[in-house]
Amino acid sequence: AVRRFTVDSSDGQHRFRIRGRVQFDAARGDFDDDIAFVARQAHEPPEYGTIIRRARLGALGYMYGNWEWQLEVDFSDQEVDFANAYVAYLMPTGRLAIGHFKEPYSLESNTSSRRITFLERGASVDAMRPSRQLGIMYSTLRQNWHGAFGFFGGEGVSINRAVEEGYAFSGRLTVSPWADGGNFLHFGGSASHRQNAFDKEQDIWAPVRMRTREGARAIDLRLIGRDDIEAVEDFNRFVLEAAWGIGSFSLQAEYNRVDFNLDETAKLIAHGTDSNPSNSLTMDGFSIQASHFLTGEHRNYRPSNGTFGRVTPQRNFDPASGNWGAFEIAARYATVDASEHSRIGRGQEMDHYTLGLNWYPNPDLVVKLNLMQFDAKRDDVESEGRVVAARLQYEF
Amino acid sequence: AVRRFTVDSSDGQHRFRIRGRVQFDAARGDFDDDIAFVARQAHEPPEYGTIIRRARLGALGYMYGNWEWQLEVDFSDQEVDFANAYVAYLMPTGRLAIGHFKEPYSLESNTSSRRITFLERGASVDAMRPSRQLGIMYSTLRQNWHGAFGFFGGEGVSINRAVEEGYAFSGRLTVSPWADGGNFLHFGGSASHRQNAFDKEQDIWAPVRMRTREGARAIDLRLIGRDDIEAVEDFNRFVLEAAWGIGSFSLQAEYNRVDFNLDETAKLIAHGTDSNPSNSLTMDGFSIQASHFLTGEHRNYRPSNGTFGRVTPQRNFDPASGNWGAFEIAARYATVDASEHSRIGRGQEMDHYTLGLNWYPNPDLVVKLNLMQFDAKRDDVESEGRVVAARLQYEF
Amino acid sequence: AVRRFTVDSSDGQHRFRIRGRVQFDAARGDFDDDIAFVARQAHEPPEYGTIIRRARLGALGYMYGNWEWQLEVDFSDQEVDFANAYVAYLMPTGRLAIGHFKEPYSLESNTSSRRITFLERGASVDAMRPSRQLGIMYSTLRQNWHGAFGFFGGEGVSINRAVEEGYAFSGRLTVSPWADGGNFLHFGGSASHRQNAFDKEQDIWAPVRMRTREGARAIDLRLIGRDDIEAVEDFNRFVLEAAWGIGSFSLQAEYNRVDFNLDETAKLIAHGTDSNPSNSLTMDGFSIQASHFLTGEHRNYRPSNGTFGRVTPQRNFDPASGNWGAFEIAARYATVDASEHSRIGRGQEMDHYTLGLNWYPNPDLVVKLNLMQFDAKRDDVESEGRVVAARLQYEF
Repeated sequence: AVRRFTVDSSDGQHRFRIRGRVQFDAARGDFDDDIAFVARQAHEPPEYGTIIRRARLGALGYMYGNWEWQLEVDFSDQEVDFANAYVAYLMPTGRLAIGHFKEPYSLESNTSSRRITFLERGASVDAMRPSRQLGIMYSTLRQNWHGAFGFFGGEGVSINRAVEEGYAFSGRLTVSPWADGGNFLHFGGSASHRQNAFDKEQDIWAPVRMRTREGARAIDLRLIGRDDIEAVEDFNRFVLEAAWGIGSFSLQAEYNRVDFNLDETAKLIAHGTDSNPSNSLTMDGFSIQASHFLTGEHRNYRPSNGTFGRVTPQRNFDPASGNWGAFEIAARYATVDASEHSRIGRGQEMDHYTLGLNWYPNPDLVVKLNLMQFDAKRDDVESEGRVVAARLQYEF
Repeated sequence: AVRRFTVDSSDGQHRFRIRGRVQFDAARGDFDDDIAFVARQAHEPPEYGTIIRRARLGALGYMYGNWEWQLEVDFSDQEVDFANAYVAYLMPTGRLAIGHFKEPYSLESNTSSRRITFLERGASVDAMRPSRQLGIMYSTLRQNWHGAFGFFGGEGVSINRAVEEGYAFSGRLTVSPWADGGNFLHFGGSASHRQNAFDKEQDIWAPVRMRTREGARAIDLRLIGRDDIEAVEDFNRFVLEAAWGIGSFSLQAEYNRVDFNLDETAKLIAHGTDSNPSNSLTMDGFSIQASHFLTGEHRNYRPSNGTFGRVTPQRNFDPASGNWGAFEIAARYATVDASEHSRIGRGQEMDHYTLGLNWYPNPDLVVKLNLMQFDAKRDDVESEGRVVAARLQYEF
Repeated sequence: AVRRFTVDSSDGQHRFRIRGRVQFDAARGDFDDDIAFVARQAHEPPEYGTIIRRARLGALGYMYGNWEWQLEVDFSDQEVDFANAYVAYLMPTGRLAIGHFKEPYSLESNTSSRRITFLERGASVDAMRPSRQLGIMYSTLRQNWHGAFGFFGGEGVSINRAVEEGYAFSGRLTVSPWADGGNFLHFGGSASHRQNAFDKEQDIWAPVRMRTREGARAIDLRLIGRDDIEAVEDFNRFVLEAAWGIGSFSLQAEYNRVDFNLDETAKLIAHGTDSNPSNSLTMDGFSIQASHFLTGEHRNYRPSNGTFGRVTPQRNFDPASGNWGAFEIAARYATVDASEHSRIGRGQEMDHYTLGLNWYPNPDLVVKLNLMQFDAKRDDVESEGRVVAARLQYEF
């Protein structure tokens, strides 16, 4: 693409590209009385907030014909975080990658943050999805289906003298019986087993975080996973996912579940008499959403890796020519039941509703507006909130 | 420019550029006896120091004809800081930008750190100028005058669960009756109203920092604004600015002022019996400087945005051909009266004198040498100091 | 090179290049009983670990014919660290650089981490080599010998209000009587005098760190230099180095030594009755290694700067054509005697053995496997360990 910054060698063996994305978010919230109790914080939340949600700069390319590589760093929160950083060997029908990348998990999680419909991923996915990890993964390069299977470490990016890292086996399989532009059908599932990390210095299992917020990050309200789960020996993640598109209209849904296996002794040490009597906890939820392009575009489903790609407006924004870009309306319902927690009284639940309006002035620019409503609950106390959030996103 | 790294698309609709700057500073100081008292620190300052003052890497470009974008990250102090990060829509006579950029404020502040005459900005500007913020700003694209007006958040780049961000309305207007190479005249002014942020966790107004040092950062002597001002509800900034150039000679001056409005209750909680009895504080000062190019160049005044741009030597450094680049001599006087502080005894004042010699071997490289003398005062105790500081700066 | 990302101006006066490197490491260890005592840590070390050892992104180039510049940032450990960041003026037979770069010290230290034979540098070099510093350095550009001499500050990259930075004079001289592809002979030496930094706030000399680990960073076992040396006024570093290559076979060796000069009063304040009675401490050790390319390549010795460069496989990995890249086997013995410490009982010693197998699928990709064995000792307690470590490295 001429508009992007890409250099190809004349023999077609090498490509080099600089890439980046920036997302500015703002949110305004209106919360009911017991919100601080439900989110377990000592003070009322701010009423509005802004944030640079993501700011990534990176390079990527191909070398010597069969090798692909990336190095992408995220600077949001004024910290350094690695996004994709890997090298992969390309074969005719598959790809073997080593480095730092997303575990194969869920349609919404494996879809880039630049390509999701709302500001944040559906609450159930957002809470339960794994972060990027160092690992090795084989994935298929096929037309109508996608499989990926990998072995991953446990947040072992930085030096840590005391922690015996965990590890995970994770896989995902998706099929698309048909996929032709806006008309597509997608089914898939993921499963992952993770052995938890163990901190030898503190002599405890690493706390496990499964957190999501009110649908925006510009206000930091921890409605699910406010407190990490303690004493987790290992846990299993499961996803069932489906999507269907016909022209400008599409549906997307997934069910997410995590089963935790607690270490009884560690649990009693951590929580004492507040311990949950059960050593098997389950957290689950689902997200379902519909989207419709008012201007005739469609979601860009990619069957070869079971994710959504970039939306390309039929006409770029150019008011002089009467062109306004693409507009999409969307609605979502998501629910998470994290009422089971290693410590009694720390579980949380949420129902979450979103209405969205997206404006795509051109393929590299998106403006999103989300109206959200949630019912959240902790310890039989319920609270509600309403949030308006907006995002301006550009990429290069 | 062929020497820089820029890629243009063949249709002229897109441009991509990688940009960076690095500034290495060294300083040596000689301070009088009471300096630790005046700077309110427990130990004598170091006699010399070095620092990487700025180290920025970024990308910027145009896309689809009418959109401009930047993403620039600063790594100095081995931390991540955002410099410019925005997207702007370009119209025939104006520009609407959203993202993270400088508030419109002052000739010296809005001029890039690569283009100022001395190592640091004049003490009054440096102390009172706002930092970059997330915001939305309209600015003109006109020949002989410049106007900019924006609405800005309050340091809301990162997640913060407890702080209700403040906000500001800021504007700047400049006119240049004539501007033709080194011959120019510039008048301008800025005004800004900022509502302060409020920390709901600590139940206090965010401390307000208006700080400047001895004219260099390689030695960190906090002669103005050592202690943040507490209990500030809101404050107003004002600037009056002027510049005049004739050939290789130029003058530049500005007056800076901030009026703080304190919350009496919060002030008494913060400082008790040490509280300043007044709830209206004023901080002000001015900086005036003269510059002369020994080698015939002139300051690069840009009337369309009311700032100074790059100095281009008539001949680049090339000793074999007898060319030595451009040389500039400069002098500055600055004064800041920050004697009014929310807490008695924390106010500071300074008179600051600088002699400068700049060497421009080529357009991308600058070497600066500053000889400085200051008289600083706190609580009727005065101290003086003399500082020699040098900078090597390159950009790409 | 067409495969890299480089842009040259048509007049040959300017060059711009984006550069990066990523190293993923994994290690598994098996340690004897007293290892926690010897490494002076409260818990048993993890048995395995992973890490992003280096992840660097940077730009570099030439400008106006005679100037060279770099800006390279390292993001490993999710922190910001400067690697090379300097500007240099090029003359016919020399080069004057100002900025942040390696002190001239040792063949193994001055060789890039991308070009060393094993995962980590030999234990004696790794423990005693200086980090990059801000400084000014002249180095020769000659055919058969290399000299470099510089003046360096003391970790003065960031602002520090209280520390009087130290400084160092450092030089290195190497000669290569012959150097023709894989056939080379190299002799050299370095010397450096460093005045230690002084913390005026805590009123102590800056602690001096001379640390190395078990030969990998993915497990952080501090077998040498676990405790910084206190009360150091100044110290001198010395290196003697040699290398010899004949075809695919090569040898490399160096002796490293540091002599510390302690401040007696400061030592007694820091350690009291545990103080080492002597004020002159010596730490020394040596590393010797042999390497052989099974596939006919050779180490890329560069006599003009006395370091090793990139290994270029005779045939890139391409199984379809029966090509597998380059393979190298190597062995190393290293020993460090850091038994003298400012505080009694804190000295450590180590003998370290490594077997290595390197695979170079192409010039930009290296896979390393190291089998290591060490005998470490503290306070007459000895412990042993065996470590398997692997690295995947790519660069662009």
